[in-house]
Amino acid sequence: MAELKNDRFLRALLKQPVDRTPVWMMRQAGRYLPEYRAARARAGDFMSLCTNPEMACEVTLQPLDRYPQLDAAILFSDILTIPDAMGLGLYFETGEGPKFKKSVRTAADIEALPIVDTKKDLTYVVDAVATIRRELNGRVPLIGFTGSPWTLATYMVEGGSSKDYRRTKAMMYNQPEVFHLLIDKLVISITEYLNEQILAGAQAVQIFDSWGGALSHNAYFEFSLNPMRRIIDGLIKENEGRQVPVILFTKGGGQWLEAMADSGAAALGIDWTTDIGAARQRVGDKVALQGNMDPALLYAKPERIKEEVATILESYGAGSGHIFNLGHGVTPEVDPDHAGAFFDAVCELSEKYH
Amino acid sequence: MAELKNDRFLRALLKQPVDRTPVWMMRQAGRYLPEYRAARARAGDFMSLCTNPEMACEVTLQPLDRYPQLDAAILFSDILTIPDAMGLGLYFETGEGPKFKKSVRTAADIEALPIVDTKKDLTYVVDAVATIRRELNGRVPLIGFTGSPWTLATYMVEGGSSKDYRRTKAMMYNQPEVFHLLIDKLVISITEYLNEQILAGAQAVQIFDSWGGALSHNAYFEFSLNPMRRIIDGLIKENEGRQVPVILFTKGGGQWLEAMADSGAAALGIDWTTDIGAARQRVGDKVALQGNMDPALLYAKPERIKEEVATILESYGAGSGHIFNLGHGVTPEVDPDHAGAFFDAVCELSEKYH
Repeated sequence: MAELKNDRFLRALLKQPVDRTPVWMMRQAGRYLPEYRAARARAGDFMSLCTNPEMACEVTLQPLDRYPQLDAAILFSDILTIPDAMGLGLYFETGEGPKFKKSVRTAADIEALPIVDTKKDLTYVVDAVATIRRELNGRVPLIGFTGSPWTLATYMVEGGSSKDYRRTKAMMYNQPEVFHLLIDKLVISITEYLNEQILAGAQAVQIFDSWGGALSHNAYFEFSLNPMRRIIDGLIKENEGRQVPVILFTKGGGQWLEAMADSGAAALGIDWTTDIGAARQRVGDKVALQGNMDPALLYAKPERIKEEVATILESYGAGSGHIFNLGHGVTPEVDPDHAGAFFDAVCELSEKYH
Repeated sequence: MAELKNDRFLRALLKQPVDRTPVWMMRQAGRYLPEYRAARARAGDFMSLCTNPEMACEVTLQPLDRYPQLDAAILFSDILTIPDAMGLGLYFETGEGPKFKKSVRTAADIEALPIVDTKKDLTYVVDAVATIRRELNGRVPLIGFTGSPWTLATYMVEGGSSKDYRRTKAMMYNQPEVFHLLIDKLVISITEYLNEQILAGAQAVQIFDSWGGALSHNAYFEFSLNPMRRIIDGLIKENEGRQVPVILFTKGGGQWLEAMADSGAAALGIDWTTDIGAARQRVGDKVALQGNMDPALLYAKPERIKEEVATILESYGAGSGHIFNLGHGVTPEVDPDHAGAFFDAVCELSEKYH
């Protein structure tokens, strides 16, 4: 593997000194970029883009080519590859979000679900990671990722997106042992999935717990955080002579940061509802923090974006351990120049804190 | 006015001793009840139900007739009556949520908005409150309500529901002075609206800040909490020889409870993501707490509902100051018998804490 030329992101994850705050953006390879839309049109549809390692590599690199300020690449893929590999048949209807041909509703459905063998069932993901690492040629580190067990379970039980996770929660509350079996199969599958990503070249991994914030306090610990902790426990800790840091991101998890900081993750992703300075005080030296500008700020004027970046940097304060990001993924309607203004602001304003 | 026969709810709001924990349910007069669906079918549509004081009274009383355990009635109305009275033209498309014929997108749109004169423009609400009070005949207290300025503003700017409040936040971030003018007009209109509800007979009022949890930490204080504080400051404090308590409910506001407790509200509504015992410790003696069972628990078996009620009661602990409720409104698919099991559990299990 080529030597890493920019390790700002990995150093910040481990709270080691950096020259400025590193920055990347969730969903940075996405629909707000015209070059992405062109690639997707060529591929035909979203899943063809994900399952073709060369094309996944191409779109992963697009934001890096456009924005030299970026300090990390993230594998272009979907959070629902695991349930798809379990045989549920993932597809996307225009404007409708992800759907599954089969959903899991009964104990028998769950018992019948296979454990995913990443090398065999998700070869395209491993190949995409290897291809991207090769093509990155050491420019910046590559982040691998997965959805959390709870988040994947909601899609599997509902058969797609959901507003209130009715069926999933009914199963969770009524048949906790059945639901735990589903979660367990996901924990095992995801752990191996992330380890294969790491072995193929992912230098950090992020767990997207997109819907953890929809759970009650107790249910979050039992059905989302503890399973994520088990995944983290099972991950390869070091590869290529470097630590492989884990970023844990529960959207809407601002109330649970102390517990998340004890999960074994190196860093916590936080959304924009939490003040990052207050979050830093709460987690102390245990973890780095990633975030947390409101993605809607990218609809504002560049001057206003810069102002918000300044506020967040000032709130976090001096020292390493902050990876600048949005509090959630960038949305399709954003002007790419506004994203550029965001990255510029982080680069320009963060030096004085280091 | 008839003498109040059951003041458990009002006493708990003021942290005065009660014999058991009072209970009511957000959206208790709603689509999960067959008698409600019949009334709505008779009325033709939702707004016809809201604007007819006799019918609004009828559906307000339906849950009380079915569930003698309930300790409060809540005015049947919509949170969007104020923007409708401002001339935006509220309507509902089946399965689509609320929409406005006109939306407000520019400074000129906002300058042109009138302040609502409740007695003239929302006579039907005042009449509904008076009718319900008369028909309640002292059974339980009547709660009046409003949407919060921020919540109403999102519907007004977007022209309906929204996933990310894009246009609203763009205005808020780019033209804060324009957005403040909108918020100011809402603060003035809402204050008078609630005062007219109180004068017509509402014995407590709740502010539904349904979307406050979508704001960043700083924006929440500036655009949602401070305006709500101004409303509370302007409310009639006592009527019919009793205090008129205010309940402040920011869904997703668990991180901001300390600040909310300083708003002048007598009680805070909390959603199910916050542990109610931890919340009580954080707010101390300042306010009562209302909540906070996950509405999805009503899809579970009655035994499981009872278990959850027990957990929440135990978490809050001994003493007054807890009003049992869901953490958000009951959903249409719920079995009415499960709601009954919920109320039964609160009545049966809460006595020992008082």
